[in-house]
Amino acid sequence: MMNNDYSLDDAIAALATPRGKGALAVIRTSGSRCVAMVAGLFSRPRALLESEGYRVHHGWLLDSRGKKVDEILATVFRAPASYTGEDSVELSCHGGPAVVDRVMAVLREAGFRDAAPGEFTFRAFAGGKMDLTRAEAVKEIIDSRTDRARAMALSRLSGSVAAIVNSAKDAVKMQAASAALALDYAEDETEEVPLEAGKVKDASLALKRLIGTWETGRLFGDGIRVVLAGPSNAGKSSLFNLFLREERSIVTEIPGTTRDWVEAWLNLDGIPLLLTDTAGLREAASDPVEIEGIKRTHLQIKAADVIVLVADGSISEQAAREHEEYLFRFLEKELRDVRDSLEEKIIRVWNKSDLNSVAPEGWLAVSTLSGRGFDRLESAIRDKVLEGVILPSDDAPVINSVRQRKLLERAVLAMDRFSESIHSVSPDLLAEDLRDALDALGELTGEVTREDILDTLFSEFCVGK
Amino acid sequence: MMNNDYSLDDAIAALATPRGKGALAVIRTSGSRCVAMVAGLFSRPRALLESEGYRVHHGWLLDSRGKKVDEILATVFRAPASYTGEDSVELSCHGGPAVVDRVMAVLREAGFRDAAPGEFTFRAFAGGKMDLTRAEAVKEIIDSRTDRARAMALSRLSGSVAAIVNSAKDAVKMQAASAALALDYAEDETEEVPLEAGKVKDASLALKRLIGTWETGRLFGDGIRVVLAGPSNAGKSSLFNLFLREERSIVTEIPGTTRDWVEAWLNLDGIPLLLTDTAGLREAASDPVEIEGIKRTHLQIKAADVIVLVADGSISEQAAREHEEYLFRFLEKELRDVRDSLEEKIIRVWNKSDLNSVAPEGWLAVSTLSGRGFDRLESAIRDKVLEGVILPSDDAPVINSVRQRKLLERAVLAMDRFSESIHSVSPDLLAEDLRDALDALGELTGEVTREDILDTLFSEFCVGK
Repeated sequence: MMNNDYSLDDAIAALATPRGKGALAVIRTSGSRCVAMVAGLFSRPRALLESEGYRVHHGWLLDSRGKKVDEILATVFRAPASYTGEDSVELSCHGGPAVVDRVMAVLREAGFRDAAPGEFTFRAFAGGKMDLTRAEAVKEIIDSRTDRARAMALSRLSGSVAAIVNSAKDAVKMQAASAALALDYAEDETEEVPLEAGKVKDASLALKRLIGTWETGRLFGDGIRVVLAGPSNAGKSSLFNLFLREERSIVTEIPGTTRDWVEAWLNLDGIPLLLTDTAGLREAASDPVEIEGIKRTHLQIKAADVIVLVADGSISEQAAREHEEYLFRFLEKELRDVRDSLEEKIIRVWNKSDLNSVAPEGWLAVSTLSGRGFDRLESAIRDKVLEGVILPSDDAPVINSVRQRKLLERAVLAMDRFSESIHSVSPDLLAEDLRDALDALGELTGEVTREDILDTLFSEFCVGK
Repeated sequence: MMNNDYSLDDAIAALATPRGKGALAVIRTSGSRCVAMVAGLFSRPRALLESEGYRVHHGWLLDSRGKKVDEILATVFRAPASYTGEDSVELSCHGGPAVVDRVMAVLREAGFRDAAPGEFTFRAFAGGKMDLTRAEAVKEIIDSRTDRARAMALSRLSGSVAAIVNSAKDAVKMQAASAALALDYAEDETEEVPLEAGKVKDASLALKRLIGTWETGRLFGDGIRVVLAGPSNAGKSSLFNLFLREERSIVTEIPGTTRDWVEAWLNLDGIPLLLTDTAGLREAASDPVEIEGIKRTHLQIKAADVIVLVADGSISEQAAREHEEYLFRFLEKELRDVRDSLEEKIIRVWNKSDLNSVAPEGWLAVSTLSGRGFDRLESAIRDKVLEGVILPSDDAPVINSVRQRKLLERAVLAMDRFSESIHSVSPDLLAEDLRDALDALGELTGEVTREDILDTLFSEFCVGK
């Protein structure tokens, strides 16, 4: 996005609301000339031209020949009190795709460029309206799949992570100033170095606590993948439907049909859970469609955080055990690279347990017919997912970004080097450690930026943000 | 929606933008107490309470415990200068489903009721902000699939249909007043009835022209269904893909996989075209999945406006002719009720015409490989679709509503009765004709309303509109 042709002076426009049919759609524009440009397309141009910020104007959007395009509300924002920090106009039009397409075409004709993903937020960042941790939080709020994930991202947007990072920065800066002083007076060898490790140590601890929240942040942000695997007719689809029935919350994205895999997002105590039903595993498959289905199942299983192995409990225990062994051999063969972690990932379900069969040891008896045993299955998944994860208190800052974690680790490393060697190495080496720490923390909030990082970061946004 | 518990005093709220992930989502609220109710959840309550209309306020939405829910923009509208005519607040929040769900939950807690589909527009209608022809146009604009359909709906929203109807109403009213006068003086048998048919005749003509646009309106509004039918391996899927490649415009909604049917919306000169690829027809199908697929194909064919029969031109002409006969027998058997119109609906395509085979008479040679012949197929579809349809000029009013057409027909019938019998029947009978016409026209614009009609009309809207 921020490639060479990228310019902050352009007037940009993009649909800011999800594409689809709705009562309203909002098209966002930004740029120093954007109010005048929109005014040229508006039935009441002077109302826009003379408008203060935070004012809404009712009228018609017209094309270049003066033909009505839609009845709209135009909201004017004036620099710097706007999302981007530039002048900005938001057009609220009727929410149909044909309307949106026409409005965008008319804006393009008038000189607007289609905004790249995240370009509005990039301008907000570039204009000093928000640091990078908040910019990332904007994306994370939109992407959040559960209310808990939303609350965590909102806390980051409110600046909870930025506050910790900035306070660490202050501590490091103070020592950096002292180190600089020490270097200036370095000739005067009798002068004592006035450096203190205390505050840097405290700050490092706070950053480490933040690093420690990353696993939780990822869990609530990205969610977990639970895959139902097993032979055909073991009742995987019934179990899938049981999940949908029991977990009433967010159920979305259920593509595919019988031959494809089917998946749905569920909500497990605020953790987004992507449940996938797979094609039945069978060694002797010959139908090309079935072979393709089994290939996909392999990929699903490889990517899974939890594998629920489903066996048909209505057949003899002996047959089921044989099946288990076959499945395990199968999984081991397929998952060579994850063999060690395989046992940790697997939950065994003895389905159709209402048919007078007793679940073998290590298997959870579940009846997809009556729903009996589902609670225990749910607990088992929860235990596997939460193993080793520390759930933070409701308002504690939590990070959910590899970028942030890596930079925090770099900062902590440099800060600890400083603290540990404060009495043993020369001020110029200590100053270098502090500089390393400041660099990492500055990159974290975006004071120090690297073009490629920005490219990656903002290109993951939706268009219009 | 407008059932007995429906109240115009309620504070209502609904997501007004399409559900999904986007930069922004707008949640609309309306009701006499809604500004105060939202203010109670806003970080700057006084800003809202004291706000004039058409003002935007930046702040945080808080839940009942004062916890931040999202950073939002709240736009205040004051009665009667709002969409509904009531006080109204629009909340622009981050556009993720988890955010929207939480905001809606907080609004519910604060006493807002979820708006029924179309309830905002219903309030606008009930409050005299728009007549029914415009209310319907709102829905039609949102639903429009092509730019031409949007332009037609926009013309209705601008009041082009209402203007014709209202001018007819004026003509009828004037005669109704004369008829009333004639009845008052009825005792005085010598008095000549001052009724004139001229303006009512003109108005009736204008209404008939409007009725005549209905087929066009439906065509551009609802679009046409084109179904690809034929045996397996005739190249139906290749032809489907060729359509997608050649018709670059709107391509949406492609669910299903190989075994299911596949469909896509295309744009044929502004006419939305729903193209459906079907499962291959086969008499001797035995696989239950295949039988189910063929059943669905029947339904698709029955609902089709145009059936494109695809034959494999690489086999011998004799074999292809046999196939054609079989398919025709098959279609005739399946489509007994539409036998007469069958031939009118069918276009025969001789696919794989690049393989040195000559298309038999009555068949269009197409090569899905090279794209050769596609233009002629497109023309053939266009001819079938546009047969007998009069395309109106760009700005002419066009109707697209069964309700409107039926009421126009009722009005025209009564008006013509009046004009034809003006000199032959008594004023009280003429007055009755005029009353009938006024009733129909009044119902058309919504001055005369019937509860059940309103129920049906508004319940087809999206929520939030």
